[in-house]
Amino acid sequence: MTLIHPSSHVSPEAKLGSDVEIGPFTIIHENVILGKGVKVGAYCELGIPTALGDGSPLNIGDDALIRSHSVFYESSSFKAGLVTGHRVTVRENTIAGTSFQIGTSTEIQGDCSIGDYVRFQSNVFVGKKTTIGDFVWILPYVVLTNDPTPPSEVMIGCTIEDYASIAAAAVILPGVIVGHHSLVAAQACVTKDVVPNMVVAGVPAQVVSEAKLIKLRDGSNRPAYPWTEHFTRGYPSSITSGWEKDNGE
Amino acid sequence: MTLIHPSSHVSPEAKLGSDVEIGPFTIIHENVILGKGVKVGAYCELGIPTALGDGSPLNIGDDALIRSHSVFYESSSFKAGLVTGHRVTVRENTIAGTSFQIGTSTEIQGDCSIGDYVRFQSNVFVGKKTTIGDFVWILPYVVLTNDPTPPSEVMIGCTIEDYASIAAAAVILPGVIVGHHSLVAAQACVTKDVVPNMVVAGVPAQVVSEAKLIKLRDGSNRPAYPWTEHFTRGYPSSITSGWEKDNGE
Amino acid sequence: MTLIHPSSHVSPEAKLGSDVEIGPFTIIHENVILGKGVKVGAYCELGIPTALGDGSPLNIGDDALIRSHSVFYESSSFKAGLVTGHRVTVRENTIAGTSFQIGTSTEIQGDCSIGDYVRFQSNVFVGKKTTIGDFVWILPYVVLTNDPTPPSEVMIGCTIEDYASIAAAAVILPGVIVGHHSLVAAQACVTKDVVPNMVVAGVPAQVVSEAKLIKLRDGSNRPAYPWTEHFTRGYPSSITSGWEKDNGE
Repeated sequence: MTLIHPSSHVSPEAKLGSDVEIGPFTIIHENVILGKGVKVGAYCELGIPTALGDGSPLNIGDDALIRSHSVFYESSSFKAGLVTGHRVTVRENTIAGTSFQIGTSTEIQGDCSIGDYVRFQSNVFVGKKTTIGDFVWILPYVVLTNDPTPPSEVMIGCTIEDYASIAAAAVILPGVIVGHHSLVAAQACVTKDVVPNMVVAGVPAQVVSEAKLIKLRDGSNRPAYPWTEHFTRGYPSSITSGWEKDNGE
Repeated sequence: MTLIHPSSHVSPEAKLGSDVEIGPFTIIHENVILGKGVKVGAYCELGIPTALGDGSPLNIGDDALIRSHSVFYESSSFKAGLVTGHRVTVRENTIAGTSFQIGTSTEIQGDCSIGDYVRFQSNVFVGKKTTIGDFVWILPYVVLTNDPTPPSEVMIGCTIEDYASIAAAAVILPGVIVGHHSLVAAQACVTKDVVPNMVVAGVPAQVVSEAKLIKLRDGSNRPAYPWTEHFTRGYPSSITSGWEKDNGE
Repeated sequence: MTLIHPSSHVSPEAKLGSDVEIGPFTIIHENVILGKGVKVGAYCELGIPTALGDGSPLNIGDDALIRSHSVFYESSSFKAGLVTGHRVTVRENTIAGTSFQIGTSTEIQGDCSIGDYVRFQSNVFVGKKTTIGDFVWILPYVVLTNDPTPPSEVMIGCTIEDYASIAAAAVILPGVIVGHHSLVAAQACVTKDVVPNMVVAGVPAQVVSEAKLIKLRDGSNRPAYPWTEHFTRGYPSSITSGWEKDNGE
């Protein structure tokens, strides 16, 4: 059942799917498409117009949950299953895949490409022109930068490849490629590319180990990486069954 | 005198003490208890329902001040004298003591235990299962983590003991115990336990000194630690008089 | 044309210039002066009363743009051309010059002096008693601190001189002077003064180079610093023509 709170302002031009819920004091601008079952919390503003977009709508896929005080501009698009924390900011020209999770207070500055099943935790900062693969994990207070010599007109986004994991408060410098299945340690400052399957740490970050040598801290003596060998929470079994086969070979 | 702004939405099921003030556009859900004299600013949402709680209410003790744009879930509890900045987020199952202060944009992820007279400054991030003692100070942009090998199903909260002080932008890794009366320097990455009364700094953090060897920067040549020897602002004299005696012995 | 959204609360005591726009659900308290052409987004609260101010109004100069969910206290003043992101917080006794830009989620704690044409990006934290020169750039997640031995009654603000640039997630310790035209690298922890025209990096920060030896990353082999030699976006030509002359001599 569609539930639009009477204190909200929803443009009659916005396209709402079935069973959408809009919370109190929320503003939906005209250039917005919400899929079926989308829930938007209180004090959100969706579809803010901007000359920096391409004129396309903000397109939120089915069954999204957008928590309170969040702000999305027009000209971004999310496949089904988006879930956000509170006070998320997403600027224009952000294209994200299925089942994207964005933590509280995270900001995506726009012109970004984000794969499927990506997890951003709280207060992540994603500079313009960032490219994120599939199944990436980014932990709290990570900063992905784009200007190598601030201020300049040069803008080189980071690239985070599939299954990479970036721990809390790490900073990735402009243009750096973090290889697939790699781990960036907490508080690292990554100044050059990270080879796949490796762990880097420190300021500036250095290679400290192959990722597969890190042990899980559950007493099992199993390797913590690739994490797909032991962690499946939140992914459909159609996907994780594939992981198990891959990892076992 | 009770003052409930006409633009707010206060559930008739919520239990409000005397002299409560509720600001404009604020939402109080039904499973909320506000003590006497509690003041809630504008655009706050208190008592958000969650299946992750134990069904108990959000319980805010007497004389709290919750500033604008803050969000609290149900199933958390605060003794008297809570004061928050703007845009604070507190998830379920957070139990905090007397006179807790939470700075602007700080996030507490839930399942946390926090002692009496604790001070969090702005933009502190507190992961689930963190344990904080009494009289702890946590400065801006500190991150308290809990997953030693992200992503994993292992969650090991940090422990910050009584009177410890953690300076700006430090990161505490999962399971680390920061000993009582210790000091973590700004931008440190603390990877192992900190012995009481010591100072650690760096990435990764190393012991640099006994805390008592750090001098106050006021020209007095007095030691800065234990800080209870010179700092009493915001604590009742019934408490600080005990500090003076302890420190003098 | 003045546009005041009917859901906003604007005090009849507030002084509004011509062509002011006030967004939905925004609160303007009585001790506020808005210049002509000022635009205020949704969910903002401007002019919050505080005993820590000097009783003077919040004074926002002409043609400002304040984005949604922002909070300003009374007793601060901004010359023309202020632009903010979303969820900015500015406390009392902040005096800023012309064309100040403040990124999303940035917090200025008050008692600060800020020059002309200063750029703060997202999530910058500016402690009380900070002094910022003209044409300064501060990138995301930078923390400017003020208490050398937390907690203490000593409060010594940082000083950032003209044209200095502080890269992402750097922390500046209390009382440090960052010299003019210098560059602080990302994730640095600056514990002592930075000589003008130098680059510092690391935890703790060390001098790594003269700034003029850093090359632009655009393939041109030109020096990246002083940045006024190649970057003029957002500044009036009356100013940048002077830069070109200075730099050429």
